[in-house]
Amino acid sequence: MKLSRYLLATLRDVPKEAEVTSHQLMIRAGMIRRVASGVYDLMPTGVRVIRKVEQIVRDEMNRANALEVSLPVVQPAELWQESGRWDAYGRELLRFRDRGDRDFVLGPTHEEVITDLMRRDVSSYKQLPVNLYQIHTKFRDEIRPRFGLMRAREFTMKDAYSFHLDADCLDREFRSMVDTYRRIFSRCGLEFRDVEADSGAIGGSASSEFMVLADSGEDAVIFCGTCDYAANLEKAEVRRDIDAPPEATGLPSPEEVPTPGKKSIDEVSGFLGIDPGQMIKTLVFQTSVGPVVACIAGTLEINETKVKNAVGGDWAHLAEPGEVKELFGVEIGFVGPVGLPDGTRIIADYSVNAISDGVTGANRPDLHLRHVIIGRDFEPAIVTDLASAWKDAPCPRCDNGHLEIRRGIEVGHVFKLGTKYSESMGLTVLDANGKSQPVVMGCYGIGIGRTAAAAIEQNHDDSGIIWPRPLAPFDAVVVPLDPKNDQLMEAAAGFYDSLCEAGLDVALDDRQERAGVKLTDAELLGVPVRIVLGKRGYENGVTEVTVRAVGDKQEIPLDETVSAVLALLDEAGQA
Amino acid sequence: MKLSRYLLATLRDVPKEAEVTSHQLMIRAGMIRRVASGVYDLMPTGVRVIRKVEQIVRDEMNRANALEVSLPVVQPAELWQESGRWDAYGRELLRFRDRGDRDFVLGPTHEEVITDLMRRDVSSYKQLPVNLYQIHTKFRDEIRPRFGLMRAREFTMKDAYSFHLDADCLDREFRSMVDTYRRIFSRCGLEFRDVEADSGAIGGSASSEFMVLADSGEDAVIFCGTCDYAANLEKAEVRRDIDAPPEATGLPSPEEVPTPGKKSIDEVSGFLGIDPGQMIKTLVFQTSVGPVVACIAGTLEINETKVKNAVGGDWAHLAEPGEVKELFGVEIGFVGPVGLPDGTRIIADYSVNAISDGVTGANRPDLHLRHVIIGRDFEPAIVTDLASAWKDAPCPRCDNGHLEIRRGIEVGHVFKLGTKYSESMGLTVLDANGKSQPVVMGCYGIGIGRTAAAAIEQNHDDSGIIWPRPLAPFDAVVVPLDPKNDQLMEAAAGFYDSLCEAGLDVALDDRQERAGVKLTDAELLGVPVRIVLGKRGYENGVTEVTVRAVGDKQEIPLDETVSAVLALLDEAGQA
Repeated sequence: MKLSRYLLATLRDVPKEAEVTSHQLMIRAGMIRRVASGVYDLMPTGVRVIRKVEQIVRDEMNRANALEVSLPVVQPAELWQESGRWDAYGRELLRFRDRGDRDFVLGPTHEEVITDLMRRDVSSYKQLPVNLYQIHTKFRDEIRPRFGLMRAREFTMKDAYSFHLDADCLDREFRSMVDTYRRIFSRCGLEFRDVEADSGAIGGSASSEFMVLADSGEDAVIFCGTCDYAANLEKAEVRRDIDAPPEATGLPSPEEVPTPGKKSIDEVSGFLGIDPGQMIKTLVFQTSVGPVVACIAGTLEINETKVKNAVGGDWAHLAEPGEVKELFGVEIGFVGPVGLPDGTRIIADYSVNAISDGVTGANRPDLHLRHVIIGRDFEPAIVTDLASAWKDAPCPRCDNGHLEIRRGIEVGHVFKLGTKYSESMGLTVLDANGKSQPVVMGCYGIGIGRTAAAAIEQNHDDSGIIWPRPLAPFDAVVVPLDPKNDQLMEAAAGFYDSLCEAGLDVALDDRQERAGVKLTDAELLGVPVRIVLGKRGYENGVTEVTVRAVGDKQEIPLDETVSAVLALLDEAGQA
Repeated sequence: MKLSRYLLATLRDVPKEAEVTSHQLMIRAGMIRRVASGVYDLMPTGVRVIRKVEQIVRDEMNRANALEVSLPVVQPAELWQESGRWDAYGRELLRFRDRGDRDFVLGPTHEEVITDLMRRDVSSYKQLPVNLYQIHTKFRDEIRPRFGLMRAREFTMKDAYSFHLDADCLDREFRSMVDTYRRIFSRCGLEFRDVEADSGAIGGSASSEFMVLADSGEDAVIFCGTCDYAANLEKAEVRRDIDAPPEATGLPSPEEVPTPGKKSIDEVSGFLGIDPGQMIKTLVFQTSVGPVVACIAGTLEINETKVKNAVGGDWAHLAEPGEVKELFGVEIGFVGPVGLPDGTRIIADYSVNAISDGVTGANRPDLHLRHVIIGRDFEPAIVTDLASAWKDAPCPRCDNGHLEIRRGIEVGHVFKLGTKYSESMGLTVLDANGKSQPVVMGCYGIGIGRTAAAAIEQNHDDSGIIWPRPLAPFDAVVVPLDPKNDQLMEAAAGFYDSLCEAGLDVALDDRQERAGVKLTDAELLGVPVRIVLGKRGYENGVTEVTVRAVGDKQEIPLDETVSAVLALLDEAGQA
């Protein structure tokens, strides 16, 4: 691509509309432009990157014997009414009427349409298993679209759906898709972890998320430094020392101590001069089975998902201050497990068993209780693991490993759907005995634009993007510094032609621009290898080659430049 | 692709919902399924074909230095209000509100969005020319979607928009795009014509349509059998013998003759026993400049577009019977140019000059006039070419050529937009003198699904589709007739592997199905080359190879089969 004929559209200034680095750099590198909230034009440089992600995904899905389909963006309401999601989905499902006054939606996901496709054409177990995927446009009417392609309203997704006679067959496909996703993100040149995730509301029985590691990630990724255990924060387990409940022998009865205005663990333990580990932290959750009071040692954090699972609910979240006041007549911070109304559901983390002389809220304003002990003073319905994983916690899977915590960006998700859609929409097949069976389904997504954004979050510096080579808009850029020097321009064109012939995506910066502009743009765009031709170097018979990820300039003889660039790019990996 | 792991979804019966051949065959070959009126799932076989069309289009657009972008399906109303099309577009423009109560549309076309993109990032003539294209989803809320992908509501289109400082530069790009389109449809293996089209309402100054020739086509394609002149029926010119007006010497005055209930040219000329060429056919048009009465010889047809252009209007269409009655107090069929109210605008075709003793309507019920002659009895405002082209008419461009008429399906359209959008939306650049200039635009579309449908209309027989090789879902299919014969299945798998390694898209029909089912499916699918392995043939050391477009079976020795298939496919052309 000759940049004189290209729409580069780079910007020097950081755009005000963009909060996160990838969004800023996508705008500055001329990849995207905002058309409306959460709706973007993909500019030529953006398309180049997105097509590379798509092609890797398509290759690997095909290799895994998945079949490409293309399902409509505009979907009839009837299908969503059948599945029950017309009522359940909420306002992210954009609904409208066509000129014939029929209800439609813009597809935020395609379970309904694909289940409908399958029930139309599949009736026998002999036609299974099958895995159908598409790479196409979705629309979710997010209340607060943000971060550019990271959370857009209109976006491109690879979604795949697999169909099976039984759960064993689904298990095999699920594992095959996990392998496929690992290949995809490896081929993208990204550092990632696939983590166990809670499959709760989705209704399946297994779920993994693929997280690109980046300090700016919204999610915590927990993984063992020794074995390959990895999970998201919601799901992460920890090997717990399961103490027996403590003995109360010799412990005085609970006694109120004034703690005026002291609410947090740090405030109370500091005020009373005790170890925070001696505090019985008490939080109130609203759950699908009613309010729950959960206790844990003051040094640990309570994990909402584990609370939900402990009470067997569909959901759980921290109660609002007003709700706590209404339930127990006291502010959050002064709630404790002792003396709560009859019938209050109390649960405790294992760590509470290790507290033989605890301090907790007194359920009265500005007062805590000391000399509190589990078993004597309060009796939880269950003592179990409620703790969020912490750095250096013992690994739940191996003997000597300890957990590490990094930040990550979710770019893919695989999960078992089970028979939710096949049952509600009547997708059945006859098995080998001629008996009708609901089809067992799996579901596998990758955010295409989000993968590109995550790659930038992981790979950038103050000068711009540092693309992993497989996703780069151009493999290499040839920069003649002085566009008025014909000899230089000719030599540059020669390199450009040779590298193109070698099958590379090459940019030739033949614009009538100052050298500084060209070099700044090359860095901003993040092209893996840059070949600079200056007047002096050329006269000395050398080019100046820079690997973007490294930064050092190397002088390379003119006649060795092409092979040197090819070798550097080989090192940088192939898509 | 092993068909045992594929979702073939072929059907034996002709689906009731489908009127035209391509729609029927796309359903029967398992390419598409209807989700809602004008909204389709693309099944695996459909995607294979569509991706091949897309790849040819993408290749050739890239070769022509067009830059790929991707513009949103969901577009803010503001852009359409700016261009004026929010009010002008009518109900095919699907409008809706998002959760924030803002107006949006589903993009039926992208002039507004691309003009907005350009005005954001382009300000100097140095950034021009540029041609931006996308291959993406569009939605038009057609009142009567029909013919499957031929006229769907949701569909995939390649649309491109070029931007220029001046009309000369646009001319060059327009010619380059015409060449590109010729390459595209040639590479698709289609018989087509690019025809001159009327550019009227679009507001440009040149326009060509690309028509795939097929007997079932909705449009007439007129072309010279000798030179390369081609046009659509609207636009087609004819070389006319321009007679001087006839002499009235010796002709009796007009005289009424009763023609009870006789209205058409055939009825009247038959009833009166005269040559139809002696009739002065008279039709009434409504146009943007008021009603017009147009006359032509009874053997010719009047062309609406030529009427529109003759009166300098924006549009013209035949008046409804009620309108004619109201205007002239008589039914269509009895209208004539003689004795019409003062101020009636009359126009005539050259052919009327050749009628020296004519018959025409008397403007009274059940009466015609004879002995009518132009000049003496009525005086048209203009005598010009109003005739629709006819078979064997003299070519307007060469000396000896005559026109042929075939049916065609419009698959592409290129036209000059001029400054319509750049002026209404403020897309200007500074020219070399620092003066602000509205950008001159061109616009270039290809219907991707429609191209596939047109290919089927052009290439099919009673057994199914006969794909041009570049668009075929598979280049070849290997059919072992007896799936229980291990030796046969192994040999088939061997051919499959060899042909895959040669870089072909191959299907192996390893399904546990009867031979008849496999052969019927192979023909329905239209795979260019079929390799059949039967028990007897195999024992005799031969395969049976059939080219779908030819039909004859050839026995080929086993060890020559692969090279024979490669040679046959080479003959069938490459994408």
